[in-house]
Amino acid sequence: MSKETVAFQGERGAFSEEAAYKLLGRNIQVLPCETFEAAFQSVVKKKASLCLVPIENTLAGSIYENYDLLLQNDLHIVKEVNLRIVHNLIAFPGTTLRNLRRVYSHPVALAQCGRFFRSHSKFEKIPFYDTAGSVKMLAEKRPPNSAAIASRIAASVYGARILQRHLEDHHENFTRFLLLSPKSHVSPRANKVSIVFSTPNSPGALYKCLSVFALRDIDLSKMESRPLRGRPWEYFFYIDFVGNVNKPPSRKALEHLAEVTTFLRVLGCYESARR
Amino acid sequence: MSKETVAFQGERGAFSEEAAYKLLGRNIQVLPCETFEAAFQSVVKKKASLCLVPIENTLAGSIYENYDLLLQNDLHIVKEVNLRIVHNLIAFPGTTLRNLRRVYSHPVALAQCGRFFRSHSKFEKIPFYDTAGSVKMLAEKRPPNSAAIASRIAASVYGARILQRHLEDHHENFTRFLLLSPKSHVSPRANKVSIVFSTPNSPGALYKCLSVFALRDIDLSKMESRPLRGRPWEYFFYIDFVGNVNKPPSRKALEHLAEVTTFLRVLGCYESARR
Repeated sequence: MSKETVAFQGERGAFSEEAAYKLLGRNIQVLPCETFEAAFQSVVKKKASLCLVPIENTLAGSIYENYDLLLQNDLHIVKEVNLRIVHNLIAFPGTTLRNLRRVYSHPVALAQCGRFFRSHSKFEKIPFYDTAGSVKMLAEKRPPNSAAIASRIAASVYGARILQRHLEDHHENFTRFLLLSPKSHVSPRANKVSIVFSTPNSPGALYKCLSVFALRDIDLSKMESRPLRGRPWEYFFYIDFVGNVNKPPSRKALEHLAEVTTFLRVLGCYESARR
Repeated sequence: MSKETVAFQGERGAFSEEAAYKLLGRNIQVLPCETFEAAFQSVVKKKASLCLVPIENTLAGSIYENYDLLLQNDLHIVKEVNLRIVHNLIAFPGTTLRNLRRVYSHPVALAQCGRFFRSHSKFEKIPFYDTAGSVKMLAEKRPPNSAAIASRIAASVYGARILQRHLEDHHENFTRFLLLSPKSHVSPRANKVSIVFSTPNSPGALYKCLSVFALRDIDLSKMESRPLRGRPWEYFFYIDFVGNVNKPPSRKALEHLAEVTTFLRVLGCYESARR
């Protein structure tokens, strides 16, 4: 049986790769892509069978570009996974906590390790384009007295060592990833639905849309809005709710929603990840 | 009477400065700031009396950082203005459309002028940190055969000429700006209210919140969500609605909303801008 190829944005060792292993195990091939759009396109053009993209982070918020790409591409959400973001200090032999001077990483990762840098004031923070990319650069150029902050997978991909774990200030730092496939497959165990819709431009329109869920005691887990291009001050709404499109309450709610929306698409129905 | 000082993010000549003149006229002093946070802080620390920040663009969506800063700072929205984003080709004497080779601007502005670059394939696009900043750089360094893409105000601030107007692909490109003040003042003419709230983590909670508006036929013009830090998968909701906090329907709706939310703050009540 041939391995699945999973595309993601970032260098080898990115947090997306760590999330792919958590969700699918180690028996997969990975395809790193430069941009989120390239990760989507690699599935559309059949260079990969699946792609895994981050959709929200509990500190930074939604990754809006991926909401837009979900609408622009005809892919289906088939699974989700929540990954706790653990920042590790990673170096190659010869560099120790004692002789370390320079720490490379993505600016967001450096900013999320404020307490670590305050307790090691001799370390210089050097912004880099990518977390895993900074480990890759250390592997290739071996600058002296230098380390990187990245995922534990980045250390193993590039054969580096972890000098210290859990550099992050906030432990409640999770990223939710969606696994996308060109094929829609709804398991009987699926218990979460993601949809996107637009409403008529009239008072109470959004309230009517939410009523189709509230009247059936269906729980919403996420709601997001994005601009409707070419129609200033109108929006697409993205909603995640608890249910299965093949079972009565959700099916009826979607039929009802179709009556009160101007556009409606189901993006996927899949098993909810643990928190 | 002393002039108001209005802080904004960006270099002199930024679209925010153009929006400030549209909203308040030319008889103001402006204070350019490096970041949005610095623009907010300049008002908090009384270096400026007001600040003007973009909150959403009809093509790109919300400026989420400013939603977060509205919550973190105790400033009040006192006015809003919608600015049509017009991209201009700006150069200094000696550079013409005929001898032009290099065009500097912010990557988003360059991307929004795709048709212009396709019809002038000899022009090289050079990404720069800021639209107005690219005109400032031309003014200081005078590189040959070079132009910038920026607001018409940037041309006048730096004494440059506009070679061509309306380079933008989409004419439906508007940015909505909010004027923030440390003092709350609600005019009897105010007809728009901006609020932020969080809900109990229970099914139908958001629906109950929206019902306080729907039951009173109050129209919502915008809804946005942002993560609640330290409480994974919970959110703050930002809503704009039509009304005046001193008049019965809105006042009653807010009293009702306070009963069904765990946190509620009015960010401002002000006159709605024309579309």
